[in-house]
Amino acid sequence: MLVAPPQVRLPARDAVDRALAELDRRLGGSKVDTSEAARSAHAVDDSEAIGCVPDVVVHASSRDDVALTLEIAERHGVPVTPRAGGTGRTGGAVPVAGGVVLASQGMNRIVEIDRQNLVAVVQPGLVTANLHEAVEAEGLFYPPDPNSLKTCMLGGNVAENAGGPRAFKYGVTREYVLGLETCLMGGRVLRSGKRTIKGVTGYDVTALLVGSEGTLGVFTEITLRLVPNPTEVATVLALFHDVRAAADAVRRVVAARLVPRCLELMDASTLGAIRAQGVAIDPRAGAMLLVEIDGGGVDDLLERLGAALTEGGTTLDVVAAQDASQRARLWEARRMLSPATRKLAKYKLSEDIVVPRSKLVDLLTEVDRIGERTGVRHLTYGHAGDGNLHVNFLWNDEAERPAVDLAIDGLMRATIALGGTLTGEHGVGVMKAQYLPLEQSAELIGVQQDLKRVFDPSGLLNPGKIFPTGHGAC
Amino acid sequence: MLVAPPQVRLPARDAVDRALAELDRRLGGSKVDTSEAARSAHAVDDSEAIGCVPDVVVHASSRDDVALTLEIAERHGVPVTPRAGGTGRTGGAVPVAGGVVLASQGMNRIVEIDRQNLVAVVQPGLVTANLHEAVEAEGLFYPPDPNSLKTCMLGGNVAENAGGPRAFKYGVTREYVLGLETCLMGGRVLRSGKRTIKGVTGYDVTALLVGSEGTLGVFTEITLRLVPNPTEVATVLALFHDVRAAADAVRRVVAARLVPRCLELMDASTLGAIRAQGVAIDPRAGAMLLVEIDGGGVDDLLERLGAALTEGGTTLDVVAAQDASQRARLWEARRMLSPATRKLAKYKLSEDIVVPRSKLVDLLTEVDRIGERTGVRHLTYGHAGDGNLHVNFLWNDEAERPAVDLAIDGLMRATIALGGTLTGEHGVGVMKAQYLPLEQSAELIGVQQDLKRVFDPSGLLNPGKIFPTGHGAC
Repeated sequence: MLVAPPQVRLPARDAVDRALAELDRRLGGSKVDTSEAARSAHAVDDSEAIGCVPDVVVHASSRDDVALTLEIAERHGVPVTPRAGGTGRTGGAVPVAGGVVLASQGMNRIVEIDRQNLVAVVQPGLVTANLHEAVEAEGLFYPPDPNSLKTCMLGGNVAENAGGPRAFKYGVTREYVLGLETCLMGGRVLRSGKRTIKGVTGYDVTALLVGSEGTLGVFTEITLRLVPNPTEVATVLALFHDVRAAADAVRRVVAARLVPRCLELMDASTLGAIRAQGVAIDPRAGAMLLVEIDGGGVDDLLERLGAALTEGGTTLDVVAAQDASQRARLWEARRMLSPATRKLAKYKLSEDIVVPRSKLVDLLTEVDRIGERTGVRHLTYGHAGDGNLHVNFLWNDEAERPAVDLAIDGLMRATIALGGTLTGEHGVGVMKAQYLPLEQSAELIGVQQDLKRVFDPSGLLNPGKIFPTGHGAC
Repeated sequence: MLVAPPQVRLPARDAVDRALAELDRRLGGSKVDTSEAARSAHAVDDSEAIGCVPDVVVHASSRDDVALTLEIAERHGVPVTPRAGGTGRTGGAVPVAGGVVLASQGMNRIVEIDRQNLVAVVQPGLVTANLHEAVEAEGLFYPPDPNSLKTCMLGGNVAENAGGPRAFKYGVTREYVLGLETCLMGGRVLRSGKRTIKGVTGYDVTALLVGSEGTLGVFTEITLRLVPNPTEVATVLALFHDVRAAADAVRRVVAARLVPRCLELMDASTLGAIRAQGVAIDPRAGAMLLVEIDGGGVDDLLERLGAALTEGGTTLDVVAAQDASQRARLWEARRMLSPATRKLAKYKLSEDIVVPRSKLVDLLTEVDRIGERTGVRHLTYGHAGDGNLHVNFLWNDEAERPAVDLAIDGLMRATIALGGTLTGEHGVGVMKAQYLPLEQSAELIGVQQDLKRVFDPSGLLNPGKIFPTGHGAC
């Protein structure tokens, strides 16, 4: 096990057996999967967290299935771990106390696209790219674009408050969630939010649920705000000798009052990984920015962007994509970064810290220092516009793990010291729970634990996530 | 009293006396005002709600003053009503159980404007227009623009999640609040949120606090996201025979994938009120749209906007403002609507319901029906792009009040039946508390009351707001 899950109790065997019998009887055997293969497949996600193999995987196909599962599990004291795409990076979908994995992949319908009101209603198992495709066919746009968009699902996007490159202009998932239907532990159904863009009736319970990492409730229907699909998009690549020059260009772009939808940075090691994929990049380049602008008047914006990027004389080259296929190739290279860099070593851990944009250079300097101090190989890329960088640590030997842990610890501390935050889009999950007190006061953590108890007094829903609690149950 | 405040208990006299003595001793007499004038002035706000005259007004000048007041008040069991500008429309700042009014007008500093990271840190008593002016001088922009921007304050804007005309493109206050320093009842200080745009560490406690109407905590410092000030702005007026034609033009603008920053509608009665101010408007016009676009490529956008507005042939006239002073005059007329229409009758009640944009015509038809049925005079204007309309009821005689209540009740029911929400920007406060169950389930209201108990277990902070609780204490 690479990361020890927090300490939680395993349910008693006889309680599990009684829950299994009732699930089987009331949901029907086809939805209640106790096969070894299903249980093993649902013990892990796309993070390095390894939890306990669950006792059962429930494949929900409706809200009633979800509510019934939560009712039965609570009655018998059995933990439930919700799961959508299982593409999370911090172990949010990894069961750390066995019990039930409640899988919503079967709930993958687009319930409605309301073109007049720019609203979509979807089920939690819908793949994000499928939503993109469907709304774009109607001239509409759903901006959040996590890197895993071809496999991740909206339920997980909402649970983790997913971001992506387009967040610089368009914001993250929370900006698009208007309303939620959520099943709570015990089986209660809570409808919160609205279908209108404005609405301030009562507390913003919907906003509290977004990003709650499956610890407060299980989403069964999601009402999303859409925006008009921008009529023009342009993509620009800029090459620099080093990341400092690139970070300085980011500062100039913002100072010029430009709001690109994406402003992505790649460091020298990352360019190396791209070159290793057979992509030709000027050998002098030690950093790259991938910038995308959209809206009206793109030609004028492109001109201002070019000026901002080249000002100061440290830019090697600026190239605009000439057509849609060239643009698609640029983005394909960006999206392949995560799998491509994973091939560079046996183990890879991708952090997603955020610092104020003005501290990008300081953070990059600090990352180099941490690399030197610990001897751990690293590469950095990410959403420079937001100050949200993916710092990746790479290693081949289990024996290096203590050095990696030191590097992560150093990165977290440096991030907080620079006024940043531990996670910009991956969430806390299991992987960052121990670092929570670095960023948040005991007071704030205590309030959050009290909020958790409002929704889940028995503590059975996705236990062991977010809050630091010690060692594992299995 | 026009609206009965919900039932809450008055504190015991000796408890108030002990609290007053301790406040006086620990805060200093200059901050603790028991004068008749101050107490009366703080018993009302800009709504029709009339509460109990408070026992004392505390003028806080620092976080420590706020924390200390909340500590003393809780120890002695004395209710506290927080107040910033006192410009609210639903009685949020009106004390319904006497006790302390905790006024933050003295905390009016801009702590910091961080140009590189597009962040402002402000105190709760800062007037919104003063923030606009300060950030625009730096080439930056704070979009939320409630109508009362020259007198309302950021603390109240955050507490009510204020909107304004520019919300159609830019969203409401919650989209701009990155972090909060909040004092809780009892005096605990809670820092939540972040200084970076992205950040998903733990639950979004900040989002829960935004729009909580002063019932969960008292803000003492607010960290806001800014955006670059748009380089170009253009304003257009379009006149129509009636509101149906105007609402149809709104639909066409959205269908053309245009995202104006404002899309304001005024009906025939509203135009009458503007004409009465001496503004010349084509006498054939029975409705008007005020549309504002910004960003890059405004000329191209203006052309597309003009085409969308005139398509269909029911548009009387479309005029673009020729310069900044013409634009300022148009907006001055819009901003004067609220005070101007208030002169039309002795009493005015401005509702702020929201319906899905496609239901605008249905809502307007329903408002006419309600007017006919109850005989109550009304006029409607507002943020048509968001489906957020200010339906104003006007009357001169207390004896008409039961008919007005019927009209409001009819409006709330029609709004919910059309898939809308009770309030788009004013909040629930005292005025709409009785209608909460029309929109929200007992389940959702129950969860919110549990959330309230997490922050304020004694129920002493801004009691009688949001949740329907019966009749008044004084």
